[in-house]
Amino acid sequence: MQYSIIVIGDELLIGQVTDTNSGWIARHLSPLGWEAKSVKVIADDEHEIFRAIDEAFAQTDVVLMTGGLGPTKDDITKATLCRYFGGEMILNEDVKRNVDEMFRRRGLEMNRLTAGQAMVPSSCRVIQNEVGTAPIMWFERDGKVLVSMPGVPQETQAMMERAVIPELVKHIHSDLDIEYRTFVVIDYAESALAETLESFEQQLPDYIHLAYLPNQGVIRLRLTGAHSNSEVIANDMARLSEQLHSILGDSIIANGDKPLSQIVGERLRELGLSMSTAESCTGGNVAHVITEIAGSSDYFMGSVVSYSNDVKQNVLGVDSGTLDACGAVSQPVVEQMATGVCRVCNTHCSVATSGVAGPGGGTPEKPVGTVWIAAKVGDIVTSKCFHFNGSRAQVIDRATTHALIMLLKLLR
Amino acid sequence: MQYSIIVIGDELLIGQVTDTNSGWIARHLSPLGWEAKSVKVIADDEHEIFRAIDEAFAQTDVVLMTGGLGPTKDDITKATLCRYFGGEMILNEDVKRNVDEMFRRRGLEMNRLTAGQAMVPSSCRVIQNEVGTAPIMWFERDGKVLVSMPGVPQETQAMMERAVIPELVKHIHSDLDIEYRTFVVIDYAESALAETLESFEQQLPDYIHLAYLPNQGVIRLRLTGAHSNSEVIANDMARLSEQLHSILGDSIIANGDKPLSQIVGERLRELGLSMSTAESCTGGNVAHVITEIAGSSDYFMGSVVSYSNDVKQNVLGVDSGTLDACGAVSQPVVEQMATGVCRVCNTHCSVATSGVAGPGGGTPEKPVGTVWIAAKVGDIVTSKCFHFNGSRAQVIDRATTHALIMLLKLLR
Repeated sequence: MQYSIIVIGDELLIGQVTDTNSGWIARHLSPLGWEAKSVKVIADDEHEIFRAIDEAFAQTDVVLMTGGLGPTKDDITKATLCRYFGGEMILNEDVKRNVDEMFRRRGLEMNRLTAGQAMVPSSCRVIQNEVGTAPIMWFERDGKVLVSMPGVPQETQAMMERAVIPELVKHIHSDLDIEYRTFVVIDYAESALAETLESFEQQLPDYIHLAYLPNQGVIRLRLTGAHSNSEVIANDMARLSEQLHSILGDSIIANGDKPLSQIVGERLRELGLSMSTAESCTGGNVAHVITEIAGSSDYFMGSVVSYSNDVKQNVLGVDSGTLDACGAVSQPVVEQMATGVCRVCNTHCSVATSGVAGPGGGTPEKPVGTVWIAAKVGDIVTSKCFHFNGSRAQVIDRATTHALIMLLKLLR
Repeated sequence: MQYSIIVIGDELLIGQVTDTNSGWIARHLSPLGWEAKSVKVIADDEHEIFRAIDEAFAQTDVVLMTGGLGPTKDDITKATLCRYFGGEMILNEDVKRNVDEMFRRRGLEMNRLTAGQAMVPSSCRVIQNEVGTAPIMWFERDGKVLVSMPGVPQETQAMMERAVIPELVKHIHSDLDIEYRTFVVIDYAESALAETLESFEQQLPDYIHLAYLPNQGVIRLRLTGAHSNSEVIANDMARLSEQLHSILGDSIIANGDKPLSQIVGERLRELGLSMSTAESCTGGNVAHVITEIAGSSDYFMGSVVSYSNDVKQNVLGVDSGTLDACGAVSQPVVEQMATGVCRVCNTHCSVATSGVAGPGGGTPEKPVGTVWIAAKVGDIVTSKCFHFNGSRAQVIDRATTHALIMLLKLLR
C-alpha cells in the first residue's frame, strides 16, 4: 500500500523548524509493507493545501497530513479541509470535554481561541487526541482517506500508535487487529542475525512480518502482524516472542523500542547499582545521554570529563608513568580511568573513553577514530579498542553508543 | 522570488535519514527575500523525479535539488536529469581532476564507480564541488533554472555559500555581486534590538537588507546585499559593519555565523585562558558542546558532572552545611561548584549549573525549569537564577546556552 505525507507549516519553509514527523511515520509504516510515495512540505495557505491534496490523491489513496491545527489565526488546516471535503464547522462535544479536561488538569483557564479547538468539519470523523487539544480528523471520499494530525511530534506519534495506525489497518483490510513487538538486540551484525533467524523467519505466519532496523551496533527487531482474530494474533505474538528470546538469549537487551541510555538505567535500577562515567574523547556526551532520561539521578552519580592529562592524573588517579609509557589513548589508561571514577564518584559501575575524535590529532599508530573504551561493574573491568569512521561528531556519537553497549554486556 | 526544493533519496522516505538541507537552504535564502514555495521529498526513481520537476516548474522558475548523486547504482539523479534536459553524458575534465586530486589527498585509489563521477550531462554547466566528488549541475531551459546538488549536508551547504547562492543572484539580477555579514549579538531581546537599530535600519541603502535571527538569548543579525558594483557593496558593508559595532559595542560577540561554543573557544584562545565545567542539571551537555569543536583540547581541560551531592562535596569541595541550608539548586552552591572545578581542573575559567530539569523534582519554591548558573573568570564569579520553560531536553539545552553566554560576558 502506498501513501503520501503532507506537512503544513510556514515555520518549516523558512527553516525555523525541522520536520521529524514524516520520518517517524515512515519508520513505523514501512514494516507494515506501506510505502511513502512522497513527502510534501507546504505553507499554511489554502490554495497550496488544495493543490497538495489533489496531487497526493492523484498518486495514492491514503494521505497523512500533519500541522496547522493550532488555535492561532495562522493555522488554517481545519477550515481548509472543511472547504475541501464539504460540510460546515460544528461543535464536537467529545473534543470540548477533552479540551476542558486537559485545561482543568493543567490548572489553566480555557480562552476563546482554545474553545475553537472543539469546532470540527461535519465531513470528518474525529479521533480523540489523548495527549493534546487539537482533534485528529479522518476524512473519506470516493475510496480515498485523508487523516489530519497535529504538528507537535509527541502528539502525532502517540496518537499514530494508539489509534491512527490501527484504524488505517482496519480500513485497508477491514476488521484486522494489529500488533507490534520490538526487541533490542546486541552482539550481532545484521547479516549474522539474519542467518541465525533464518528458520525462525521461514516458519512465521504469513500475516506476521519481521523487520531489521540496525543502528550503530544495535539492531531493533520488529514483529508486525495484522489479523482478524485478536486472540490468534496475541497467541502467535506471545509464542514468537518466546521463540526469539530462546534463540537470542541475553542478546535481547530490551523488549520495546527504547534508547540504550534508558535500557542501561532500567537495568541499574533492577540491580540496585549506581554508575559514573570518565570521559576523554566523548567529552561529556555519555553523561549527557544518560541524564537525558528523567529520573536518572537515582542511579547516575556523576562524571569526570578528563580532557587534559592533568585531570586524568589529579582527579581520576591515572598513573603518570602509564600515561608517559602508553599514551592517553591506551588500554591501561582507559581502565584506570574507569576504576578511578568509580572511586571518586563512589559508584558500583562506570564507563570510560579515551580516543582521537579528530579531525586533527591522529598518528600512524593511532589514527583519527581510534577509541579505547572500558566498562566496569564491581571488580570486573573489560576494555576494547574501536576504530570508528566518520566526522568528529560521528566518532563521539559511536563511542558513546559502544560505551553503553559494553556496560550493558557486563550488566546481564 | 519564489523557488521549490526537491529532495531525492529512498533513505528519507523510509525515515532512516532526516532531511536537514531544505531547512538550511530556506534559512539562508529567506533573508534575500526568496521564498520556498514547497519542499518535496521523493524516491530515487526516474518517473518520480520527472513528475516532481514538472510540478515544481509549474509553480516556480527556480528549482533547487539535493541528493541522488553518489557513485552507487541506486543514485540515478544525474542520468535522469540528462534525459529530462536532453543531451548525452560526457566526460568533464575539470571534475575528473577534482576527483583525482581529492582521492590523492586522502591517499585512496580511485575505482571505476568513482571515476563515473566525472561523467556529466552535456546539457548542464558544472559548478566544481570543492568539498566532495559529486559535481554540482546547473541546468537552464526556457527561463527556468534547476540546480542539482549532493545530499551530503556539508557539501551542499559549503557550495551553496561559495558558489550557488552568488550564481543564483547573478542569474536573477544579472551581473549583481552579493555579500553577507553576520553578527552574533547578546544582551538584547529582539524587540529592544530592533528599537536600538531603528535609525540604522532607516538609512540602509535600498539594496541592503537586515534580518534578525533570534535563538535562545542570542540574536544573529545578517546584512545581505546585492549590487552591480562590487566596490560599492564592499564599501557600504564595511561602513555598515563599523556602524553596527559602534552602536552595539561589545554586545556583538562575534562576526560571522558561528556556534556559541566556538566563540567561547576563540575568545579563550585569544586571551590564553583555559576553562572547565561543573554540571549538575546539564549533566555534561556544556562539556559536550564545547568539545564538539575541533581543537577544544587546547583550552578545555575537563568537567565534573556532579549529579549527586556526594560528588559535589567530595570532588568539587562544596560545603555540606551550605548544601543542607540552601539546597543543591542555590546561588552559593553553584558558585562553590564553579570555584571548585577551577581548582580541581586547574583552569582560569569555569561555568557551573544546578537546577531542576524535570519533569519530576520540582517544588513550589523551585519549580521545574529553575536553574542557577555561575561563571568564573580569574577571581570574578557571577551567578544568576533562570526559569526556563519546556521539556527536560529544552531546559538542559537552554541552561547550556545561557552558561556559555554568561562566560562570554565575563570574557569581554
